[in-house]
Amino acid sequence: MPDTETVADLVTLDDIRDAATLIAPYAVRTPLLESPWPGLWIKPENLQPIGAFKIRGAVTAMSRLPREVRERGVLAHSSGNHAQAVAYAARVFGVDAHIVIPDSAPARKVQATRDLGATVELVPVEQRFSRPLELAEQTGKALIPPFDHPDVIAGQGTVGLEIAEDAADVDTVLVPVSGGGLISGIAAAITALLPNAKVVGVEPELAGDAAESFRAGRRIPWTPALTARTMADGLRTFSVGDLPWAHISSQVHDIVTVTEDEIADATRRLLLQARLVAEPSGAVAAAAFLHHPDALPGGKTVAVLSGGNIDPAVLVALLAGA
Amino acid sequence: MPDTETVADLVTLDDIRDAATLIAPYAVRTPLLESPWPGLWIKPENLQPIGAFKIRGAVTAMSRLPREVRERGVLAHSSGNHAQAVAYAARVFGVDAHIVIPDSAPARKVQATRDLGATVELVPVEQRFSRPLELAEQTGKALIPPFDHPDVIAGQGTVGLEIAEDAADVDTVLVPVSGGGLISGIAAAITALLPNAKVVGVEPELAGDAAESFRAGRRIPWTPALTARTMADGLRTFSVGDLPWAHISSQVHDIVTVTEDEIADATRRLLLQARLVAEPSGAVAAAAFLHHPDALPGGKTVAVLSGGNIDPAVLVALLAGA
Repeated sequence: MPDTETVADLVTLDDIRDAATLIAPYAVRTPLLESPWPGLWIKPENLQPIGAFKIRGAVTAMSRLPREVRERGVLAHSSGNHAQAVAYAARVFGVDAHIVIPDSAPARKVQATRDLGATVELVPVEQRFSRPLELAEQTGKALIPPFDHPDVIAGQGTVGLEIAEDAADVDTVLVPVSGGGLISGIAAAITALLPNAKVVGVEPELAGDAAESFRAGRRIPWTPALTARTMADGLRTFSVGDLPWAHISSQVHDIVTVTEDEIADATRRLLLQARLVAEPSGAVAAAAFLHHPDALPGGKTVAVLSGGNIDPAVLVALLAGA
Repeated sequence: MPDTETVADLVTLDDIRDAATLIAPYAVRTPLLESPWPGLWIKPENLQPIGAFKIRGAVTAMSRLPREVRERGVLAHSSGNHAQAVAYAARVFGVDAHIVIPDSAPARKVQATRDLGATVELVPVEQRFSRPLELAEQTGKALIPPFDHPDVIAGQGTVGLEIAEDAADVDTVLVPVSGGGLISGIAAAITALLPNAKVVGVEPELAGDAAESFRAGRRIPWTPALTARTMADGLRTFSVGDLPWAHISSQVHDIVTVTEDEIADATRRLLLQARLVAEPSGAVAAAAFLHHPDALPGGKTVAVLSGGNIDPAVLVALLAGA
């Protein structure tokens, strides 16, 4: 039995449909693209403003804050796409965003968040969780969590809703897993709409805590030092959240892993063969399709390309290796 | 007065709406993406199967062939995206495609067309127009022209229909110009639906025959040797077609040109800042926005990114120069 001692209320299809209405003016309704590889379609979330699916959850969560709360401004901690998603959503609503980022984060990610109008506070990495809580208490600002929140999961679930609309005959949906917000929302939508389709998570082997947890039937967190080894910098979270675990343990078919070489190869082939810019974290689902077909349920398959914020230097290095 | 001695019947909004119905099962209904550059939205036709808008016209033209004609198979001449579009459309309809390609074309383009199941015939460049006509006579197969045909223009016009649906408040639509099929269809749709919006063509300065023609009010073809100088290999056509000229001279606001450096810069910035893979020909509209704002009507602007089939070696060279 999974460790869902306190059974969480799972996010429902109605929650996700409400989220779809809320995000419609701000997020791109991404198409489903036939890939150059027979049997695979791609859901290109790199086309979103800020270049990642995270905008769906951030806008949903902010939309659902009471107006008087939202107008005080919002807080988030992230070194990656969630920071930019919250900054973008705050700009959309005309409120302040205060983003706590570890001082080890790359300068270009800090700058991208500032360029969206957010106040960025750099903190030692060990304060990245405590500082936002302190700020929430001091300022009364709402904290927008990156994955462990029903509104965030409902927002990410709109990806699944759109996949079901565009491919009612899908057999397998491959989704990158980090904190688990994206796969939870997608699994909630697909389970409700296409009960015969299977949702499969994909993780880097070097940050495979969710895959190990799934096999064990209970959450087994890894250390940040371990998960930091993968080039997929968006998938270094060392444990899935509480509500995501409730979804994963009940609605997800399997979680598979891919190697660093496979991630690099998929990133390169998405660029050169499919004309899609993926960051390494965004390429893991395609990597599983290309390199581990026997580990997957098969049939008509959709890979979620979760984001495209790749460091130009990494892109050049990948192409040089082509 | 433009040289439309024989006044051609312009493609109408109804023709374009019919085309939209015909292509719906095969072409991607591309979204309109907010670019990182304030005031500019991008219509990403690089997301189409075969990586370019050409599939819209090819599918429309093939759909409108009488079934008994279509079943004999089709012919086309092209060294670029039109070849792949016709090959793709033929595969969709389950008929043969015989594509005549100049023997000077890059091997990878030949291979990409063969990979789609087409028969490729390589001919000396001076036979590229005569050989397909000869084949048409011998075989009874229909020739699908790249731009100078009402069905092809109606198909490309669906790009304009979608822009009008997604951005009723658009002021300026920037469109790459080569043979003129794409801008003709877009101008027909925009003129009918948003009469206050302006459609502006963009050409490489080194293949600026349409811009010179537009200024002169009559078609002034350039030599292939001249137009071959641009890196934008999809825009080397040395004269717009008859029906395109009728649209351009009556429905297009202006045609501007961009330099090779500007094309390279836009291709690079689309990749690194907008996460979009453009071939140089597909980047000219964005190049005009980025480098010649004063030459444009301004306001809310859409740049059509017409295709993404960039040679990997060109991509690497562009990034190395970043």
